[in-house]
Amino acid sequence: MVQNLEYPKRAYNTVKRYNNRGTYDLGAIHSIINTTSVLHVSFAPSPDQSFPAILPMIGVMGSFEYPSSGVDEPLDCYLHGYVSSRIMRLARESPNGLPICVAATKVDGLVLSLTPNSHSYNYRSAVLQGYAKPVETEEEKLYAMQLITNKVVAGRWENTRVPPDHVEMTSTTILRVKIDAGSGKIRQGGPHDEPKDENKDEITNKVWTGVVPVYEALDAPIPSATNKVKQLPPYLDSYVSETNNGNRQAALNAANEP
Amino acid sequence: MVQNLEYPKRAYNTVKRYNNRGTYDLGAIHSIINTTSVLHVSFAPSPDQSFPAILPMIGVMGSFEYPSSGVDEPLDCYLHGYVSSRIMRLARESPNGLPICVAATKVDGLVLSLTPNSHSYNYRSAVLQGYAKPVETEEEKLYAMQLITNKVVAGRWENTRVPPDHVEMTSTTILRVKIDAGSGKIRQGGPHDEPKDENKDEITNKVWTGVVPVYEALDAPIPSATNKVKQLPPYLDSYVSETNNGNRQAALNAANEP
Repeated sequence: MVQNLEYPKRAYNTVKRYNNRGTYDLGAIHSIINTTSVLHVSFAPSPDQSFPAILPMIGVMGSFEYPSSGVDEPLDCYLHGYVSSRIMRLARESPNGLPICVAATKVDGLVLSLTPNSHSYNYRSAVLQGYAKPVETEEEKLYAMQLITNKVVAGRWENTRVPPDHVEMTSTTILRVKIDAGSGKIRQGGPHDEPKDENKDEITNKVWTGVVPVYEALDAPIPSATNKVKQLPPYLDSYVSETNNGNRQAALNAANEP
Repeated sequence: MVQNLEYPKRAYNTVKRYNNRGTYDLGAIHSIINTTSVLHVSFAPSPDQSFPAILPMIGVMGSFEYPSSGVDEPLDCYLHGYVSSRIMRLARESPNGLPICVAATKVDGLVLSLTPNSHSYNYRSAVLQGYAKPVETEEEKLYAMQLITNKVVAGRWENTRVPPDHVEMTSTTILRVKIDAGSGKIRQGGPHDEPKDENKDEITNKVWTGVVPVYEALDAPIPSATNKVKQLPPYLDSYVSETNNGNRQAALNAANEP
């Protein structure tokens, strides 16, 4: 049996609270990153500023050196969007890359128990620590742009006007994050109550307990005023229905875990 | 006419890129925080560590001193969940509170244009900078616990076994964040393409453009194995349908903005 690859446990990525929910599995962590629409990226803006910065960014795992790598293999994280001049400048000026933290959280359900204190969410969360540098070569930039576009809608890249022209290539900035450590946390299942409440009829007869599944839904695509493609293309139609089915099923599966 | 309250523009909260999408309006920013299931909170873990930490947390705006304050008035941010001993310790040990950054992002749509470079999301994002301290008094803790529970499901607090007992009160840790600055960013509407692409039939006849609305959906509540309340309570039933309608409508409105 092949052992799954895991991130090393370091001081800053070891899950302490509810550590039974923790995971270091590359495949599990990378999948959470890849299926989360918006990642939150934090970094220290400058030594004289007390507040760490957070930016919402789009990102995806990939390997330009070994493009055929699976999601459970060592990968970099490519980030795009809202790349402020500040994070780009800091990343360019750091010889070893800017230390950043990338977080992704998906809510799968509201877990409603007898008491407010034992309420919870079903969720999947992932955090990566790594060093960010701007992608320099046109080849790697093109590789990352394609990954990122196809993360938004599978198959979208090849169904748009590509390749980007010279102006588009030079105006696009992408960060590559070399991952140093990572961790994930997953909560599934129904509510857990304590016997002190579960054994009281006046409580259990009054309080509804269970899970409200939560998922990110895509509604029917709305064409733009200038759109000329009258029929919704099959790749887009299937992407919408497959994403909805997959997201909803993940929320239902989480709710029905024992 | 009454002027809306705005956060002051400081070096670390002024929106630079796409600054026409920026807002400093308290009501707009607080509403994004209040309707986002999971907030991402970042802080500097210790001077010898290069990576900032990020924690997913549940949070809501409120004022214990002026509980009748509106969402557009000065408020604190109360945070709960995954309160690691680390952030609690740092917050307790900081005389003026721990400097933290709280981020909330809601995706309202996939904006699909003719070229990958002009693809975008419709979104609403908010970032707050502030100083976090643990809530000390039982009265304020109770106030915050009720706010947070009713954020997960409106009306849930009064429909559970309350008040929390002594053990529950002492085991619950809540952070109050005094807000120093804040900003929001909102993108709405359809795709924007450039004339160089819009004027070419071979491109516009091939590439579908428009918006795929995105929203957080709640599925039918699934009772737990031990639930004894056979009929779904009206407050929960209406919460699910009102949340779905409201979230979907927000995504459709964003897509149809000119």
